[in-house]
Amino acid sequence: MPRADAQRNVDALLSAAKDEFAEHGVDVGVRAIAARAGVGTATLYRHFPLRADLIAAVFRREIDDVAAQADQLAATHSPDEALELWVQRYTEFVATKHGLGSALHSGDPAYSGLRDYFEGNAGPALQRLLDAAARAGVIRPGIDPIELIGAIANLSVPPPGSEDTSRAARMVALLLDGLRYGAAPAQ
Amino acid sequence: MPRADAQRNVDALLSAAKDEFAEHGVDVGVRAIAARAGVGTATLYRHFPLRADLIAAVFRREIDDVAAQADQLAATHSPDEALELWVQRYTEFVATKHGLGSALHSGDPAYSGLRDYFEGNAGPALQRLLDAAARAGVIRPGIDPIELIGAIANLSVPPPGSEDTSRAARMVALLLDGLRYGAAPAQ
Repeated sequence: MPRADAQRNVDALLSAAKDEFAEHGVDVGVRAIAARAGVGTATLYRHFPLRADLIAAVFRREIDDVAAQADQLAATHSPDEALELWVQRYTEFVATKHGLGSALHSGDPAYSGLRDYFEGNAGPALQRLLDAAARAGVIRPGIDPIELIGAIANLSVPPPGSEDTSRAARMVALLLDGLRYGAAPAQ
Repeated sequence: MPRADAQRNVDALLSAAKDEFAEHGVDVGVRAIAARAGVGTATLYRHFPLRADLIAAVFRREIDDVAAQADQLAATHSPDEALELWVQRYTEFVATKHGLGSALHSGDPAYSGLRDYFEGNAGPALQRLLDAAARAGVIRPGIDPIELIGAIANLSVPPPGSEDTSRAARMVALLLDGLRYGAAPAQ
């Protein structure tokens, strides 16, 4: 098969898997994923022999998206807005990754590099947003992006027995306002 | 036994259980608790027939302490300092409750009223601190104390594989600075 076709199949499988995982959890049947992608299950298994390979690949692509959005937002918004919008999107990303979270903490070796991949990509992306906002004088400098990402993830856990995500949004906004407090306006 | 003696035994058992739980987790042997309290295991069982009764009683007393500290701090510090110190102590309380957290979420009926007890005591205590700080113009008004308590608890969860509590302290401080951001100075 030409390489472009193979890549198209991989893309279709990753998009289909992402949607199926979000709708039905990571234990959804592979037939449903292959059907949604418009390929056969043999094709799915050729690219992703194990379910964990597919889950890891979906997560890696989501991390790429999250990192890429930082630069897109920086190019089209003020530093303060870009930071706020990125953090909002990251909050939604955390809130909607459904079963992926527990899969990622299952200790399966397929996921062992994902944390580093995440910190190596989303960390520098957020660092650029933070640096730009600090240079513009709208937030204080010196915040560790990995700590901030971890805090946002913690805050995005809904209260026990609740699916309420509005509390997470309010508390993450409060955290961002904490960055704005004490900012030194640009000279 | 005179009532005062019985109360003294209960107090000694709760203090001993609190320390044993903190040092060894909630599955620590009842003999060790009774010995530390200086009473026999029969006395322990008379007051707390089930381990869950003892865990719930320890937690209820810690909640009383947390709520009482709010008023003590308000009486001895500025509204801003009182709020900050209480939040610091609450962060430590969350970080050090060890096995209690998982016991409380085990669904055991002995714990069913604790959440309400907590929200009914710590909530109003924090509300009084928030009101005083807002009146003094050092924080913005209108923050829900239960949401804030939940956010602090979320932030106090250490990163996976880490026992680092300094990140929690930094992120909780950032959340408090968010309250300070946009405060309207008192007229």
